[in-house]
Amino acid sequence: MNDSTAHASHHHRTMSKFLKLAHKFNSFYLNGLQKKECRAFIVDGIQVGLVQATVTIELSRYPNVFIVNPNSVTLNPAFRDYDERSANIESVLKEMKEKKLFVTLKGWRDECYEVRTMFADQPLLKMDRSATCLFGICNYGVDINGYVNHPQKGLCIWLQQRSLTKQTWPGKWDNMVAGGLSVGNSVIHTAHKEGEEEASLTADLMKNLQSAGTVSFFYESERGLFPDTEFVFDLELPPDFVPRNQDNEVEKFELVTASVRNCDRNLSPDFKTTSCPVIIDFLIRHGIINPENEPRFPELVELLHVPLQSLYKKCDNLLTENGLSKAE
Amino acid sequence: MNDSTAHASHHHRTMSKFLKLAHKFNSFYLNGLQKKECRAFIVDGIQVGLVQATVTIELSRYPNVFIVNPNSVTLNPAFRDYDERSANIESVLKEMKEKKLFVTLKGWRDECYEVRTMFADQPLLKMDRSATCLFGICNYGVDINGYVNHPQKGLCIWLQQRSLTKQTWPGKWDNMVAGGLSVGNSVIHTAHKEGEEEASLTADLMKNLQSAGTVSFFYESERGLFPDTEFVFDLELPPDFVPRNQDNEVEKFELVTASVRNCDRNLSPDFKTTSCPVIIDFLIRHGIINPENEPRFPELVELLHVPLQSLYKKCDNLLTENGLSKAE
Repeated sequence: MNDSTAHASHHHRTMSKFLKLAHKFNSFYLNGLQKKECRAFIVDGIQVGLVQATVTIELSRYPNVFIVNPNSVTLNPAFRDYDERSANIESVLKEMKEKKLFVTLKGWRDECYEVRTMFADQPLLKMDRSATCLFGICNYGVDINGYVNHPQKGLCIWLQQRSLTKQTWPGKWDNMVAGGLSVGNSVIHTAHKEGEEEASLTADLMKNLQSAGTVSFFYESERGLFPDTEFVFDLELPPDFVPRNQDNEVEKFELVTASVRNCDRNLSPDFKTTSCPVIIDFLIRHGIINPENEPRFPELVELLHVPLQSLYKKCDNLLTENGLSKAE
Repeated sequence: MNDSTAHASHHHRTMSKFLKLAHKFNSFYLNGLQKKECRAFIVDGIQVGLVQATVTIELSRYPNVFIVNPNSVTLNPAFRDYDERSANIESVLKEMKEKKLFVTLKGWRDECYEVRTMFADQPLLKMDRSATCLFGICNYGVDINGYVNHPQKGLCIWLQQRSLTKQTWPGKWDNMVAGGLSVGNSVIHTAHKEGEEEASLTADLMKNLQSAGTVSFFYESERGLFPDTEFVFDLELPPDFVPRNQDNEVEKFELVTASVRNCDRNLSPDFKTTSCPVIIDFLIRHGIINPENEPRFPELVELLHVPLQSLYKKCDNLLTENGLSKAE
């Protein structure tokens, strides 16, 4: 064990299935960020996102709305407030949607996300949720892990299969309850609303709802960039409770024993990639994945909490350091 | 809420006491790293640490052991294996200890930590635990949160006051059980050993021990650099159990109600700064600190899990990108 070996073998190359998933849902954090192929998206002098080259080309056709420079895409500073910025971006996006330029806009939801650098910042504008991945805007969501301490099976967790007609990830397996944090809704309100709509969780059952932290990761798909933070809740349910969907977004629910073997099988490839962090975090917090069965345990935990809140602030500093005006 | 405001007010400036602590125990992660005042510490072609200017000056007096360059301090590659590297560094450190060059070496422990870039890497050498902060080596430790679901007081947590004669942080408050991961000891073995020595946790009580994740942070003090990862365990204890110390490292134990108000008071300034992340993580996982009482909740969670496992790998890439040989 104490022998020196060749460089290549210094590193513990074997990755568990969980660690492979963590690398997959952090594809942009681990591989994309370093390439520096994206431009900073600047609103009111502050970086709030990243724009890929394919998107920049289309935005440059709207010089009255977007000012494109070698390192940045800046929203026209002439738009002075939240409403004016939101309206101008929306009209561009709706035109792009009509022209079928980006697959993600097919999923236009008429439901907006707030745009800002850090969660507690004052929002600068709002944007349809289907479009935020074109600008690398940080998304926020809420997840409820419904679990059962089953007298025979031990710790079990409820999973849902997404409806086969859903716009994104149809038919894939997912957490029991998950929903995006849209304009005007608080974290706790979203948890209650989604709990009722997706799984018929009554106010009485929801009394057990317990906040358990957040997960954060940065995924890239053919649709765009997904820096995502999920507020995580655990909810212990009675063994005889069965979730029942009310909004037709769920195909079916299944109660699964929360073992490494089981979750190894369930989590890929039929599981929505961007929901895996919530389940892996649950398995870690409940001791199912632990330092004895996961050799790269510290790395796995870190990849569930990548530093999104400081990401654009740091890029901001870099722009300034390089002598570039933030709002160039 | 939708009005545009001056730049300075975009940001939610109020920091909770918990967030202020998270900034404090990440002093180097948030402020030191960017200044680039430290040199990479390179062993066998791989970065394993960072060396401050004050330490570099002393190391440069040993040109047969350390090769000092503008961006790096390299351990002489002529030392071919773990034992040879460890012995050569130890002889330098013992000389420095005799000369009283660094306050941290006063706490020489005759207990070594492994040196490597990532936790699962093959160790390249070992080093006395009092010296690792001179080289910015990642330390690993184990913590047990002893808690009680008290019939009257609700969720309570056992804290210890450190012995007044301890070399580091004497008399400060700390987690119930905490210990460093020294050479030859696994995570779970360290948990059991420290649990017995520090708090007389019997094998029977330890049956409830549950792995709950890790915290990682990067602190700088007058002693040196502390990139630290703690393996966190929760242990539910019966209401009538009282911890009893066996190794004279503890002044006293106290059972504290795990409320925000209580922990706010307990956590500063009489609490060991580098033990705060474990308590804050416990309070988050158990829903005591949550998105309703912590406006900057995602930032707080991220600062409990900063990416130490990829930190030196990334610096490595930077050295290469800048056209510098890694082992220059």
